Amino acid sequence: MQTMIDFTGTYTDQYQLAMAQVYFLKGRHDRPAVFDYFFRKVPFNGGYAIFAGLEDLLGILETLHFDEPDIAFLRQRGMDPAFLDHLADFKFTGTIYSSREGDLVFPTRPVLTVEADIIQAQIIETLLLNILNFQTLIATKASRMRLVAGDRALIDFGLRRAHGPGGYYASRAAVIGGFDATSNVRAGRDYDIAVSGTMAHSYIQSYDDELTAFRHFSEIRPDDCVLLVDTYDTLASGVPNAVIVGLEMKQQGRQLKGIRLDSGDLAYLSKKARHMLDDAGLHDVKIAASNQLDEHLIKSLLDQNAPIDLFGVGTSLVTGQPDAALDGVYKLAYADSAPRIKLSESMEKITLPDRKQVFRVHNETGLLGADVVALADETDIAVMHHPFDPLKSFAIGKYQKEPLMRKVMEHGRRLVDPLSVQEIARYSRKRIDELPDEYKRFENPHIYKIGISDRLKKERDRLIAEHRETGLKEGMR
Amino acid sequence: MQTMIDFTGTYTDQYQLAMAQVYFLKGRHDRPAVFDYFFRKVPFNGGYAIFAGLEDLLGILETLHFDEPDIAFLRQRGMDPAFLDHLADFKFTGTIYSSREGDLVFPTRPVLTVEADIIQAQIIETLLLNILNFQTLIATKASRMRLVAGDRALIDFGLRRAHGPGGYYASRAAVIGGFDATSNVRAGRDYDIAVSGTMAHSYIQSYDDELTAFRHFSEIRPDDCVLLVDTYDTLASGVPNAVIVGLEMKQQGRQLKGIRLDSGDLAYLSKKARHMLDDAGLHDVKIAASNQLDEHLIKSLLDQNAPIDLFGVGTSLVTGQPDAALDGVYKLAYADSAPRIKLSESMEKITLPDRKQVFRVHNETGLLGADVVALADETDIAVMHHPFDPLKSFAIGKYQKEPLMRKVMEHGRRLVDPLSVQEIARYSRKRIDELPDEYKRFENPHIYKIGISDRLKKERDRLIAEHRETGLKEGMR
Repeated sequence: MQTMIDFTGTYTDQYQLAMAQVYFLKGRHDRPAVFDYFFRKVPFNGGYAIFAGLEDLLGILETLHFDEPDIAFLRQRGMDPAFLDHLADFKFTGTIYSSREGDLVFPTRPVLTVEADIIQAQIIETLLLNILNFQTLIATKASRMRLVAGDRALIDFGLRRAHGPGGYYASRAAVIGGFDATSNVRAGRDYDIAVSGTMAHSYIQSYDDELTAFRHFSEIRPDDCVLLVDTYDTLASGVPNAVIVGLEMKQQGRQLKGIRLDSGDLAYLSKKARHMLDDAGLHDVKIAASNQLDEHLIKSLLDQNAPIDLFGVGTSLVTGQPDAALDGVYKLAYADSAPRIKLSESMEKITLPDRKQVFRVHNETGLLGADVVALADETDIAVMHHPFDPLKSFAIGKYQKEPLMRKVMEHGRRLVDPLSVQEIARYSRKRIDELPDEYKRFENPHIYKIGISDRLKKERDRLIAEHRETGLKEGMR
Repeated sequence: MQTMIDFTGTYTDQYQLAMAQVYFLKGRHDRPAVFDYFFRKVPFNGGYAIFAGLEDLLGILETLHFDEPDIAFLRQRGMDPAFLDHLADFKFTGTIYSSREGDLVFPTRPVLTVEADIIQAQIIETLLLNILNFQTLIATKASRMRLVAGDRALIDFGLRRAHGPGGYYASRAAVIGGFDATSNVRAGRDYDIAVSGTMAHSYIQSYDDELTAFRHFSEIRPDDCVLLVDTYDTLASGVPNAVIVGLEMKQQGRQLKGIRLDSGDLAYLSKKARHMLDDAGLHDVKIAASNQLDEHLIKSLLDQNAPIDLFGVGTSLVTGQPDAALDGVYKLAYADSAPRIKLSESMEKITLPDRKQVFRVHNETGLLGADVVALADETDIAVMHHPFDPLKSFAIGKYQKEPLMRKVMEHGRRLVDPLSVQEIARYSRKRIDELPDEYKRFENPHIYKIGISDRLKKERDRLIAEHRETGLKEGMR
């Protein structure tokens, strides 16, 4: 795949390089480290998130290096020459275990694990968070719109309001979350996703009259003609002119594909427009709507029986409003030959130590019931414990358990061929269908259960106790 | 300047290409068009915005073209071969008038104007909005934090939570808005902005004890040593260990630069830490703070007299929370040898027609008073009218008026050398100082006046009347 972003080794936070230089000069850099990527809060107060960005990340890691301007810049900043030689030879040679891209993911459990020498693992942290946090946020947002839109078309119109080239990834993530197409041509080109778009108000304005503008468009694009009807007056001018062109096209054996509403009361206007089109016998002409839409407005329009066939969504999709960011973090779980834990005054913020696996527990009907975090060498789990509440545990021996973390990269090379965005989207759709409805509602969704295995709980509690015994109130390691 | 983003002609919305193909095949593409870039709402409910992104935009436009994969992709999508030949020769040859980057900008008045053949002008729309909307949002957010932080240091820590490679531009825009440095090394490299960063919790965790981790760091980075003190227990472990290292460094004739707090009650902890450092005679050791900060939290900390010398800001800065996007638009003002207007049921949304200039009116004390939009050939304006309220007008003949829109690009070439980010930031600072305080407060800021000249008002009103006379309720053109 071609890509428009030239990631290099300096696409990282300065402190990663500062720490790496210390590790290098102190001879600690060859020791393997394990970091877990996970998040703490489901975006949009929803019940699930859709994991996205993995294929991009793996593709970038396979070729990531410090180029000459990188090294020259770091030299100019006074970094150690031997360390710079080490960076000039940088290549990611680590192993990655990951959830499948497009899968449902939930708070506190590892989504992806990096095992590499500690310099490599630190240097890629910023890049990894930058790619995965954003795409997961947007895929999740898109998925919420898909839930309410049913089988109506959803098109990403957001590039102009996206955060610069972040829009490139937003268009990809939107398709993973269930969008059908994007207006973003470059994303369509590089990711092989469907591209869609028709005309702007300026097109109509550039003509002396709307009807001529419509006719020119229908002549040049007879098979993909969607007319924007709200430049002057939707019901008095736009729709009547579209009806004229629709009937002219019909006489020529062509089919006007649709009209688009981009302002005003979309419920009222779409009903009126549907009547006017139907009265003219133009039953097959679709109605598209856009203008500051999000999942709540789409739901409201459909609750009002607005006869809209296609929704174009911009700002709220590509920026993930109102959340703006997924709070994904990357925490050390193993280093220097020992499991590591990060303590905190709040139990919820204490990390899970050591190398781990995550199992998904399916209930009797095959639907998803819980995710259980275990140590990496555990193969079956009879009991899952609530991660923080010592009084809660559940027997899960009889249920089907699916291991979720798969090795996707070893020695810095992908183990399987890249998946297309469409394959990822199909997988995501399947998983969403397996999730019971109560986790998918917008208001107070059911909280998906995350548990930990008996052995992981014992190891975590042992480390907490050990740290507390060192005499420091919050532990030492 | 090197850049990490490979913009090509397909970095646009599909409808731009659809319209362009119609213009081309209908022989309308050589006619010049004029588009204005402006926004309607000041972000963050503030009183001003800081214009940013111009130098990036001009640099991209100078080399923008459709590369071979672009053309191949569009051919595969069935676009007309003659039109594709036209795109293969695409080069932006238009003229751009613009406000200075870093200047204060306000709603409804043109910020930038593009004059080009209509195909070129349409194709660059998406790119232009994508770059300018985002950087203006972030520079404005940064500026608000600078207002409250006084002369304390502000560092951008946001790359991990940024919208993918949007973070690259966020780091640049943050400096324009008044930030001192970024953690984002690649942005530092390409934009020559200061880079800053020290250590993460994982660094401390990777050691068996905090003190050894601190000592290693101070040995390797004796001149830039900031110690993160909250990995285990800030006051019981982190600060005491930092004091030990600070005193050891002092004995060696070195200076511990600072400590960083990244959790807990930053007001309380910073005061306690300051006392502990001062009691040890470490008066010069600075205190840095981070953790979900924004302008309101920084203000609150300083209102509580928290002795914090440096603020690291991430998510809220680089995503522009809670706004997520500037609502900048790009509207046709002239095409096909005539001024153009976009009508709307709300007067506020009717556009200003024709080629225009914007004058800034300075009051008696030299401070900023109003911006007045005039026709491009007007040189002095005696009266400014309220844009929508026919009863309001002001005599402004006696005041100094500064033309704001300068020609920055002609025949697709920049007319002046690119400015550095620092030069732009200095200019912005000067402008902010010229703005009276009542526009800078966060709660109900004074609304900066925007007026229109007598001639522009007459031309706009004539066009509105003409359109209404055509018999369509909202006009025809």
